[in-house]
Amino acid sequence: MAKKTFPLSEVYRLLEPGPVVMVSTAHKGKANIMTMSWQTMMEFAPPLVGCVISGRNHSFDALVATRECVLNIPSVEMAKQVVGVGNCSGSKVDKFRKFKLTAMPASKVAPPLIDECFANLECRVYDTRMVNKYNFFVLEVVKAWIDPAKKNPRTLHHQGKGYFAVDGDTIKLSSKMA
Amino acid sequence: MAKKTFPLSEVYRLLEPGPVVMVSTAHKGKANIMTMSWQTMMEFAPPLVGCVISGRNHSFDALVATRECVLNIPSVEMAKQVVGVGNCSGSKVDKFRKFKLTAMPASKVAPPLIDECFANLECRVYDTRMVNKYNFFVLEVVKAWIDPAKKNPRTLHHQGKGYFAVDGDTIKLSSKMA
Repeated sequence: MAKKTFPLSEVYRLLEPGPVVMVSTAHKGKANIMTMSWQTMMEFAPPLVGCVISGRNHSFDALVATRECVLNIPSVEMAKQVVGVGNCSGSKVDKFRKFKLTAMPASKVAPPLIDECFANLECRVYDTRMVNKYNFFVLEVVKAWIDPAKKNPRTLHHQGKGYFAVDGDTIKLSSKMA
Repeated sequence: MAKKTFPLSEVYRLLEPGPVVMVSTAHKGKANIMTMSWQTMMEFAPPLVGCVISGRNHSFDALVATRECVLNIPSVEMAKQVVGVGNCSGSKVDKFRKFKLTAMPASKVAPPLIDECFANLECRVYDTRMVNKYNFFVLEVVKAWIDPAKKNPRTLHHQGKGYFAVDGDTIKLSSKMA
């Protein structure tokens, strides 16, 4: 799938709505994926994203060691893969293979993009001072990609216990908010 | 509207999906409201919420001074009020009056609940060490309320520039995620 560069100054428009994301990492020659919902924008430009990645996750060690990851945004068609990825550990499973996901080379970081996701955000760790206490990483998005073929992708919003709200209508109101 | 206590251990189910929230504060005898989308869960119990409140907002000073706020979650029926609140400053306007919102006394903090919102989370500032650099506050939710009359409220997810995704379908998948 041919992805296009997405402007870094617009990254907030992808993450501010609060979608479930899939975090890809690479460590010791092995790529891995986890599902994440505990993230927020922290700055528009350069785009900074704060996120909690628990020390119980295999991805935590990879992120600490390599300081790189990709935030991949799945649409609702990938719901089963999203949940499957969240239900097993990369210490035991090659998740790209198990869930038939395609690893594409990133441009600025070592972890791969998940090609099936409609957007991919290449990230470097920017600030670790909240990691010890909260497992909270601040990431800088250094390159962003979008799939121009996927119009109006509907994202997933995790409500806990396996329930997800799926994007429905889009409404437009005259907002001065960024 | 008679609100019921909502279990603190379930608060993540309200915020993890990434809804727009309305933050109420009270300072020098005046209550104020702002609209916010840059927040994330950081811990289940006690529930901790990280959020960015810019120093450009009138609410920033109130939060720094009083260390208390309420996160109120509106449903789609309140969209115009949500945007209206986001488009003006509490330094000039009494937003409760202007947007016909009802201030209800909270139980553990001084800022009022917004009665029209289907959920209200009373918060105290828990950690300010990221405020200087990022305007990032860690809040502890100390009391939570839900409106039992509002079944399946559909929340708003800000996509920037006045566009909001509204919750559509809810799907349930067998997840081991919390």
